[in-house]
Amino acid sequence: MSEDNLTAVLYKAQDLRLEQRPIPTPGHGEVLLRVGSVGLCGSDVSYWWRGRTARHVVKTPLVLGHEFSGTVVQCGPGVHTLKPGDRVAIEPGVPCRVCEHCKKGRYNVCRDVKFCATPPVDGSLTRYYVHPADFCFKLDEGVSDEEGALVEPLAVAVYSCQRAEVGVGRPVLVLGAGPIGLVSLLTARAMGASPICITDINEERLKFARQLGAEHALNVSGMSDKEAARRISQLLPRPPSSVIECSGADSSYRIGILAGAKGGVMVTVGRGNPDVTLPVTLLTAKEMEVRGIFRYANCYPAALAMITSGTVDLRALVTHRFRLDQVDQAFHTARDGTAIKVMVRVDRGGAGHGPTE
Amino acid sequence: MSEDNLTAVLYKAQDLRLEQRPIPTPGHGEVLLRVGSVGLCGSDVSYWWRGRTARHVVKTPLVLGHEFSGTVVQCGPGVHTLKPGDRVAIEPGVPCRVCEHCKKGRYNVCRDVKFCATPPVDGSLTRYYVHPADFCFKLDEGVSDEEGALVEPLAVAVYSCQRAEVGVGRPVLVLGAGPIGLVSLLTARAMGASPICITDINEERLKFARQLGAEHALNVSGMSDKEAARRISQLLPRPPSSVIECSGADSSYRIGILAGAKGGVMVTVGRGNPDVTLPVTLLTAKEMEVRGIFRYANCYPAALAMITSGTVDLRALVTHRFRLDQVDQAFHTARDGTAIKVMVRVDRGGAGHGPTE
Amino acid sequence: MSEDNLTAVLYKAQDLRLEQRPIPTPGHGEVLLRVGSVGLCGSDVSYWWRGRTARHVVKTPLVLGHEFSGTVVQCGPGVHTLKPGDRVAIEPGVPCRVCEHCKKGRYNVCRDVKFCATPPVDGSLTRYYVHPADFCFKLDEGVSDEEGALVEPLAVAVYSCQRAEVGVGRPVLVLGAGPIGLVSLLTARAMGASPICITDINEERLKFARQLGAEHALNVSGMSDKEAARRISQLLPRPPSSVIECSGADSSYRIGILAGAKGGVMVTVGRGNPDVTLPVTLLTAKEMEVRGIFRYANCYPAALAMITSGTVDLRALVTHRFRLDQVDQAFHTARDGTAIKVMVRVDRGGAGHGPTE
Amino acid sequence: MSEDNLTAVLYKAQDLRLEQRPIPTPGHGEVLLRVGSVGLCGSDVSYWWRGRTARHVVKTPLVLGHEFSGTVVQCGPGVHTLKPGDRVAIEPGVPCRVCEHCKKGRYNVCRDVKFCATPPVDGSLTRYYVHPADFCFKLDEGVSDEEGALVEPLAVAVYSCQRAEVGVGRPVLVLGAGPIGLVSLLTARAMGASPICITDINEERLKFARQLGAEHALNVSGMSDKEAARRISQLLPRPPSSVIECSGADSSYRIGILAGAKGGVMVTVGRGNPDVTLPVTLLTAKEMEVRGIFRYANCYPAALAMITSGTVDLRALVTHRFRLDQVDQAFHTARDGTAIKVMVRVDRGGAGHGPTE
Repeated sequence: MSEDNLTAVLYKAQDLRLEQRPIPTPGHGEVLLRVGSVGLCGSDVSYWWRGRTARHVVKTPLVLGHEFSGTVVQCGPGVHTLKPGDRVAIEPGVPCRVCEHCKKGRYNVCRDVKFCATPPVDGSLTRYYVHPADFCFKLDEGVSDEEGALVEPLAVAVYSCQRAEVGVGRPVLVLGAGPIGLVSLLTARAMGASPICITDINEERLKFARQLGAEHALNVSGMSDKEAARRISQLLPRPPSSVIECSGADSSYRIGILAGAKGGVMVTVGRGNPDVTLPVTLLTAKEMEVRGIFRYANCYPAALAMITSGTVDLRALVTHRFRLDQVDQAFHTARDGTAIKVMVRVDRGGAGHGPTE
Repeated sequence: MSEDNLTAVLYKAQDLRLEQRPIPTPGHGEVLLRVGSVGLCGSDVSYWWRGRTARHVVKTPLVLGHEFSGTVVQCGPGVHTLKPGDRVAIEPGVPCRVCEHCKKGRYNVCRDVKFCATPPVDGSLTRYYVHPADFCFKLDEGVSDEEGALVEPLAVAVYSCQRAEVGVGRPVLVLGAGPIGLVSLLTARAMGASPICITDINEERLKFARQLGAEHALNVSGMSDKEAARRISQLLPRPPSSVIECSGADSSYRIGILAGAKGGVMVTVGRGNPDVTLPVTLLTAKEMEVRGIFRYANCYPAALAMITSGTVDLRALVTHRFRLDQVDQAFHTARDGTAIKVMVRVDRGGAGHGPTE
Repeated sequence: MSEDNLTAVLYKAQDLRLEQRPIPTPGHGEVLLRVGSVGLCGSDVSYWWRGRTARHVVKTPLVLGHEFSGTVVQCGPGVHTLKPGDRVAIEPGVPCRVCEHCKKGRYNVCRDVKFCATPPVDGSLTRYYVHPADFCFKLDEGVSDEEGALVEPLAVAVYSCQRAEVGVGRPVLVLGAGPIGLVSLLTARAMGASPICITDINEERLKFARQLGAEHALNVSGMSDKEAARRISQLLPRPPSSVIECSGADSSYRIGILAGAKGGVMVTVGRGNPDVTLPVTLLTAKEMEVRGIFRYANCYPAALAMITSGTVDLRALVTHRFRLDQVDQAFHTARDGTAIKVMVRVDRGGAGHGPTE
Repeated sequence: MSEDNLTAVLYKAQDLRLEQRPIPTPGHGEVLLRVGSVGLCGSDVSYWWRGRTARHVVKTPLVLGHEFSGTVVQCGPGVHTLKPGDRVAIEPGVPCRVCEHCKKGRYNVCRDVKFCATPPVDGSLTRYYVHPADFCFKLDEGVSDEEGALVEPLAVAVYSCQRAEVGVGRPVLVLGAGPIGLVSLLTARAMGASPICITDINEERLKFARQLGAEHALNVSGMSDKEAARRISQLLPRPPSSVIECSGADSSYRIGILAGAKGGVMVTVGRGNPDVTLPVTLLTAKEMEVRGIFRYANCYPAALAMITSGTVDLRALVTHRFRLDQVDQAFHTARDGTAIKVMVRVDRGGAGHGPTE
């Protein structure tokens, strides 16, 4: 096996260094992976730029990246479901498996979950990575490494749409047209929802959303909450029974409750201010439900099946590609607002490696 | 039939007049009822004292009272399920039966529901009342008229506890120990929940809650939201997976989210300020759900069965009783804070009628 | 209005007569419709050929047809949602609106439902038909009368797939490739399910299913139950969590339980023998669920939205078309097994009318 | 620690031997327990008498017993939730924690679950037993060892009643008045269900069920399925929306479907013949659901809380008690039909040990 384990390590805000690290050894039930593609997420960018997200701070050197695919290089003892050479999508959060939440199937809210690239757990911008085999999902031949990396945001969208009770033939409102909002749009469509209205304040993103099939893409820039809700109600034939909040903006939460159907559900996927003023009396009178979303659980098999079967096609979301030795440039691109999804090809670049895909 | 249809009519705030009205005639599918007991609700008191509630204003003379029982006097055409002499509990909201919400079984959010004592629909502080037969539920011999009137607040509690996913062997938090909070406490207990913690700022109500079986009754007066949540978490063995907000106080909503279990549900039954600042990021990270509660649907059969079988005993909640000719005094008592539930015996009092029960 | 109300009346088995009937008058909340297209259903064919279905017998003259669309000609009093000229899809079952099941939103199991073309309620093979306005759903301009008539079988499929918990990225097994099986296939696909395996013993139907997008179409003719289940498990990557039984064949129920996933759901849509021997111990050990399906409730809005938005395209299912004066021929065609869906154009044919579409 | 690890080992049908075994050592996350009380279950009796149950055969020596409590003697590495001296109820099935079912929270259908006293996994009729700490639930001081052993059958009942959607104020039908039927009766009552009808063909058990609070206890001996269903419908005010089948008798499954409410649920808890003839057309027309029950998942916390709080009192179910050295006699008693629940006090009896409780 190559001795090269080039790794991008964040030391503090905007201090990202490429360095060699020892290649780890897989333990019982684990596999050693050669990382393929890594997608950059908003939280990665926040760690890189500010040295923190809302809840977590980079105190010791941290490897970023949690949206990724790879190839099995070596299987630890007790691994029967994978073999060297298998390409896999990696579910990045590994729970404790013994607490009440894990046993109930909501392992995403496990207190002791170890999640890639969340301090102090290292992520995947590294050539070699060790992970439990049962959180690695085999890719079919026709599924690319980049699509494998996109299973992660798709899992967020699948979980969000399911908990929002998105249904066939029912209107949906997606608030925010960033990567998660766009993947939610595609997922709601794949579930048969129609029509779908998506909002944002960035006209470019809305334009892209229309290309991806949004019947209505509304720029709410400068609108009051009530005005935005009124416009949404004019666009949709019935009030949306499912509202997917992906922006984290205070006003979006309120617009969701104002525009939502009686008995409808709004899921909160985005992150923003800790405290938000909501129209609670209206929520009560309309019997709406607000449901928090924290990552996902049990969604990788369905998300991967959707990609494999062509039920959803996420390839258009990848707008920029870099090699591992271009990782700094990748982060700058991810931050400047023109990209949808930036991919880093981790097994390419650096000494003696070839070009990106 | 007696010509006496003495009726308490609210002309404007604090202007309640007893007057005779014509006895109405039941139409197709309707029954004429001689009203028995009427319980006074907080909304009745608000209409009487302020001429309005949060959402509704008394603009024309209004008959109050929507928690009531009565005896069938006459059946209109097409009524096959009831006969004269049957004593019944009356479900006071009659929906349109044709809209999407009615067809889906959520008739409580029907836009065109006619709800007793909600302007401009008259209520039950009147000797004779006409109502659709299918919203009248027959009382067994062993169930008193007062218990029949208490089916209404019990239906609120049953609906709230069901939507809060109250379950056997699981801890519950009830916020607010007014009549609805207390009935919710009894209902959660009847569903096998344990232990139950109830909060209020009124020590008398908390004392009463303890007598009704609350394991923990916490006075949150003067506490910060975090302090109250911390105290609740000390009292309960596990965080409550069901939170029933019955106070409408801003701080209660926040305490509910702070104290609630991961994946737990808070239902909003109380009414307070239109806009409330909530810890949305925490709700998201804990995957809590907030569900609005507007009245109830399809709960009368279960609520009545609970009373009939003795699964719940609400009789201790009735602390004061008046005749119809004492209705003004009844309202004053309901407002001064010492009473839990005030009952008006509508078929007694006035010219030639006997004493209260 | 034309005096012509040509009507196809079934007097007894295979005795279908065209005769003039008086044009009915819409009552309160009703509309008078000029019927457009009527699809023939298996139950229609059974009434026509045998004078009965499993449960119902034609004792007095009966008008058949319950899958239909039409145009509003006249509105009765109290109708505000429709106006003359509106084209509509008609939901053919009108429930009592007052029983426990109606109030709970499961009006399909209302004991007193009046369902078109189920004795003694007349159906839609007649020029003019009266129906409650709230069970008529307006068609957009781009939706044809035939598509309007196909909303009925689509509603069956939507209801079945929802109750079978068909989900995005999950495998589905459809047993039986008749019209309902095929529409269920298309609906499961519209909900994002994949892959889908469908079975039948008729190779032509399986070929058609493949054209409609079934990944696997298995001819189970001559196979034992275990062999069929084994073959299905070889075809699908995981056992199906949703099984939709549309054949009514004894062996199909058993194959569904044998092949279904642990914790999976089988819905019974088809009708066959009253008593069927099932592997109950296996069902228990696998924690499968068997759910009965009786028509549908609250599915017309979603079904119509699917057609309007192009989420599902049912037009290929219509293989044969007739005018009302050719209705006998239409029934013969529907019975001989070569057709998928036979449509009768009711407002054409007879004295002075033009050709079919 | 005592060197005495007296163990009751089943070599083959009716060949149960007391012998000393080495005391095991707890591994990572495990605890060593001194077993307290062990309840005998029908499956234990079947293994002992016939050398098998329906699905499993005793091929090598097997220790029986899976309903039990004990005291922690030693903690293996990584155990932080328990300490020596803690008394615990033991959940006897330990799943693989990595398969799809485990991750979804349905670990009871894990293919690789290791369940005490199911070949080849040894059970608890032994002085010392090792078990994962997270499947041991701490008993409060007021809860006896026998009650700790009864948490297991109570977990079955809690799971069954939850999946049967037992609800407050709703009628329930329990088929079979053996130990599981009786615990289900008590659990349904603790959930607020009423009235409850229980059936059996053993008059003594029915008498006991009446003492435990069943409103109706019907002897169906000699009745046809239809007659039994008719009698049940006469006894209950409304058809039961929840049916809990605990007998495994062919006729019981049918009676459940005949008597159940439209839209009701029957859970299959009992085990009987592999194949049973069911009225499938009726199930379809009534939209009933049949749900398999295999053990339980995530029910120990609630079951234990019910016992701790007094929500349910199971003590009357223990009719016979034996020491470990009387285990053969215990099995004979459990088999002869007069006992409800037979308890074996495992830490008493044998050389130098005291009497039973």
